[in-house]
Amino acid sequence: MRTGLGEASGDFEAEAASGAGDEGHAAPLGKPVQYRHRRFLSWRYRTEAEPSCQPRRALLLPEKALCPRTERISAMAQNIYDQPAFFEGYSSLPRSVHGLAGAAEWESVRALLPDLAGRHVVDLGCGFGWFARHAAAEGAESVLALDLSENMLARARAETQSLAVRYEIADLDTLELPAAGFDFAYSSLAFHYIADFDRLVRIVHAALVPGSSFVFTIEHPLYMAPSRPGWAEVDGRTVWPVDGYLVEGPRTTDWLAKGVVKYHRTLGTTLNALIAAGFVIRHVEEWKPSEAQLAAHPEWQVELNRPMFLLIACERP
Amino acid sequence: MRTGLGEASGDFEAEAASGAGDEGHAAPLGKPVQYRHRRFLSWRYRTEAEPSCQPRRALLLPEKALCPRTERISAMAQNIYDQPAFFEGYSSLPRSVHGLAGAAEWESVRALLPDLAGRHVVDLGCGFGWFARHAAAEGAESVLALDLSENMLARARAETQSLAVRYEIADLDTLELPAAGFDFAYSSLAFHYIADFDRLVRIVHAALVPGSSFVFTIEHPLYMAPSRPGWAEVDGRTVWPVDGYLVEGPRTTDWLAKGVVKYHRTLGTTLNALIAAGFVIRHVEEWKPSEAQLAAHPEWQVELNRPMFLLIACERP
Repeated sequence: MRTGLGEASGDFEAEAASGAGDEGHAAPLGKPVQYRHRRFLSWRYRTEAEPSCQPRRALLLPEKALCPRTERISAMAQNIYDQPAFFEGYSSLPRSVHGLAGAAEWESVRALLPDLAGRHVVDLGCGFGWFARHAAAEGAESVLALDLSENMLARARAETQSLAVRYEIADLDTLELPAAGFDFAYSSLAFHYIADFDRLVRIVHAALVPGSSFVFTIEHPLYMAPSRPGWAEVDGRTVWPVDGYLVEGPRTTDWLAKGVVKYHRTLGTTLNALIAAGFVIRHVEEWKPSEAQLAAHPEWQVELNRPMFLLIACERP
Repeated sequence: MRTGLGEASGDFEAEAASGAGDEGHAAPLGKPVQYRHRRFLSWRYRTEAEPSCQPRRALLLPEKALCPRTERISAMAQNIYDQPAFFEGYSSLPRSVHGLAGAAEWESVRALLPDLAGRHVVDLGCGFGWFARHAAAEGAESVLALDLSENMLARARAETQSLAVRYEIADLDTLELPAAGFDFAYSSLAFHYIADFDRLVRIVHAALVPGSSFVFTIEHPLYMAPSRPGWAEVDGRTVWPVDGYLVEGPRTTDWLAKGVVKYHRTLGTTLNALIAAGFVIRHVEEWKPSEAQLAAHPEWQVELNRPMFLLIACERP
């Protein structure tokens, strides 16, 4: 049953093995906030999506650039997604090929969603647009779907018919959104790439009208924390060896490409940031495969040893 | 830096090595709820504490008694604390000798407390009464301090002068409390011994008036989950090998005595139980030693690899 990193077996394991089936998107920085602000404000009035930013280079941060964090935040960020090798690997993940149904955690996420009919939705890190299209199909009035990757947005646009969906390039680390412009915010596996989560949730809170929901998933911090994430055998048991869980900050791993940078925060820190921004926590789910999934994929049994995904639902009162 | 279970070094490590410095108290069951209910209702009118239950035997559950859980809940529970060997070991823990100041997490807990002056406090699993006396010293109007252990309550009573504090035998697994009888609820390291946490938090919620706080600590589920909790060396790193985190239910460990039964719930399950009962989550802290503590106890550095304690503050709106 042991499935080490790089020892893929099965769709879910392929994601597990490669680092989590992320749809998250790191964020190149250094754009003037004012510029983004103006652009965001104009979204509502644009009739078609267009790339409004200059093409950006795929940046791979040298380790030293990650500390101190303030330097990193003010300087630049990582857009690994537009690297050809990464994009190719990402495009072949089950969730990239099969969409939401290809994501093991989707049914659990779906159970947390409000009725989307008539909603004004913002999707933070939309990737290929699977959720944006789902929201439109569910009757959302509008979906603003943001991502850092030009490549992903190009495919998302090509595959989307609905006029309710608008795709935009955006850097979640410097994001600005119009105040009270949405009544549902969503994100799938993007926020663990964000250096300044506190700032981001304040922006999201201000962008939501009272009574709105905010549902997102991230890599579980227990999955992200270790210096070398992967299964090990200890005294005949398959275990997930944890170190550094309480040491927050960047983690550099190799996932589809070398040197992917993620930001480890404890579960408590993530929840407290939401609470401090004014959200009320509604549900916290450390995801595990369902009985039906385990029956269909007995090799996923190993996933019961530690959670890979964290699902959070909260409300802006 | 490696400190395995049973390789104590320093006060905190002595607790870590022995299982967590618990002040929690398992609960012998089989008492009619109605009896307890009547007794609880009468608390407010009694002028002095007295042992109102028959002496109970220290019960050590056979493994098979633990499943199914409903059987266990309706049958009996574990009061290991009144076993002579356990009580002696427990009494020698730093937190038992030095009180709150001997508990590494105390300053973090204290930061979560409301102003206690004038409050009607219930302390669930009071042990030797350190917190109850603290609350009285802070001006609490009344403190109902509950524990399962006759031995602990005897010492607590002997060491308490304040007339504001009342000690009572209680089984948290069958607890009944008067509705809206308190405006602050507290518990230190007791709830991981509770089989039916959902029930308990509903009882606590109903016992609090609107606007009340509820602050408690438990062993962190990451600490409790593994089939064999303890440090290991993997590829030259000191790690905490996690297995079975997503498999909730009883965990039997040896801590001061053999066969101590605790109930593992994921962090998400704990939070969702509070939310379902009507609480609003205010703060979730996966405790770690402070910089000052690490400077004073460099051997605690290893504790940064995984949290031992979970601190939760919530509000009954």
